[in-house]
Amino acid sequence: MEQARTARGEQTRAAIFDAALALFRERGFEATTMRAIAERAGVSLGASYHHFPSKSHLVLGFYRHVHERHVAACEPLLQRERDLGARLRGVVRAVVMTCEPFHDVSASIFSTVADPSSPLNAFGEAAAGLRDDVIGLYARVVAGSDARLPEDIATELPRLLWLYQMGVLYFWMLDSSPGRLRTLEVVDETSDLIVRLLAVANLPPLRRSRQRLLGLVQSVARDVG
Amino acid sequence: MEQARTARGEQTRAAIFDAALALFRERGFEATTMRAIAERAGVSLGASYHHFPSKSHLVLGFYRHVHERHVAACEPLLQRERDLGARLRGVVRAVVMTCEPFHDVSASIFSTVADPSSPLNAFGEAAAGLRDDVIGLYARVVAGSDARLPEDIATELPRLLWLYQMGVLYFWMLDSSPGRLRTLEVVDETSDLIVRLLAVANLPPLRRSRQRLLGLVQSVARDVG
Repeated sequence: MEQARTARGEQTRAAIFDAALALFRERGFEATTMRAIAERAGVSLGASYHHFPSKSHLVLGFYRHVHERHVAACEPLLQRERDLGARLRGVVRAVVMTCEPFHDVSASIFSTVADPSSPLNAFGEAAAGLRDDVIGLYARVVAGSDARLPEDIATELPRLLWLYQMGVLYFWMLDSSPGRLRTLEVVDETSDLIVRLLAVANLPPLRRSRQRLLGLVQSVARDVG
Repeated sequence: MEQARTARGEQTRAAIFDAALALFRERGFEATTMRAIAERAGVSLGASYHHFPSKSHLVLGFYRHVHERHVAACEPLLQRERDLGARLRGVVRAVVMTCEPFHDVSASIFSTVADPSSPLNAFGEAAAGLRDDVIGLYARVVAGSDARLPEDIATELPRLLWLYQMGVLYFWMLDSSPGRLRTLEVVDETSDLIVRLLAVANLPPLRRSRQRLLGLVQSVARDVG
């Protein structure tokens, strides 16, 4: 009985979620109201607010959903592969493939992520839990690899890779190549380049600049995080 | 007579511009209508549309205005100074100081710049003229300096510095330090770091990665520009 009620709750939640995505796609994020979402889902406004107290909660639920699929998609690779370049390329490919079904709504939703005044801003508090989880995924990419990195790089690299993922997703949003294959090429090229730069970052001419750069990343992360 | 009419036109244009900024500040960019702007400016809706056919035109006019002030602020420094680090630091400081009076509206306006579906998107066609002008300003920063850079770097660096400027402005928008002095510190540190990295970019261990990175920047700029 309890289980049936929960399953019904999950169904309602999924219906609201699907309705919201459809409306974001048709009208854009800003123009979509909670009332319209409830109507489209065929549930009461009260039920909608019960599951998602605001549109922001819907969007965070959406990110959470995508992130969980992303992690699941990476799992076999992270278990199997030890090469840092291959791990990085695979995890970034996986986020592109996981987001791909949502390409036509991504721009509408993304406008709130980049907006510093939005509660959903990627650097803001509401997104902190999810941000930490994505950074945690990249910490696994680094820690489970056989690359031997200086400690300061190993510490800050996951956060830099999170920024890199956002850059790739921004490129993917703008990508108008057939099948968006250009995004996959850019992932191949950039992930390999990152690994090559890491390999030289410990050489004497770069060491001092690297330490300054990482110190800066750390302090800026404190400022805006 | 002709001159008086032009002066009156300029006044009307300025009144619409100021009204728009005030309303963006109070209500945000999305919620501000052309009708509300005309009312606040005390002009007819027709006159408003004559000067700015859409809100997008207003925002582009705003960017143009800020950019012209920015260039004027840089002029003495670009005439006087030959050191690349000092030129870069000065030009980025100047953009921060020029934008500072608009800090409280910047987030509202910026949300449209980052939105890939917006016609005002920084990588889009409507913004192309302004983007080229900002890149051109950084080309002057590089070309007028006494730094001897490899040709591939000298070619792509202005575009990378335009991206760097956008990054600094994004930090400035999020900066909640007293007086936003933290932004000026970050400008000092990052501009110096960029110049140091340029100094080592021609060393053998980095040369190949640098060439690949610049090739990638070039091809991505073609894709999204």
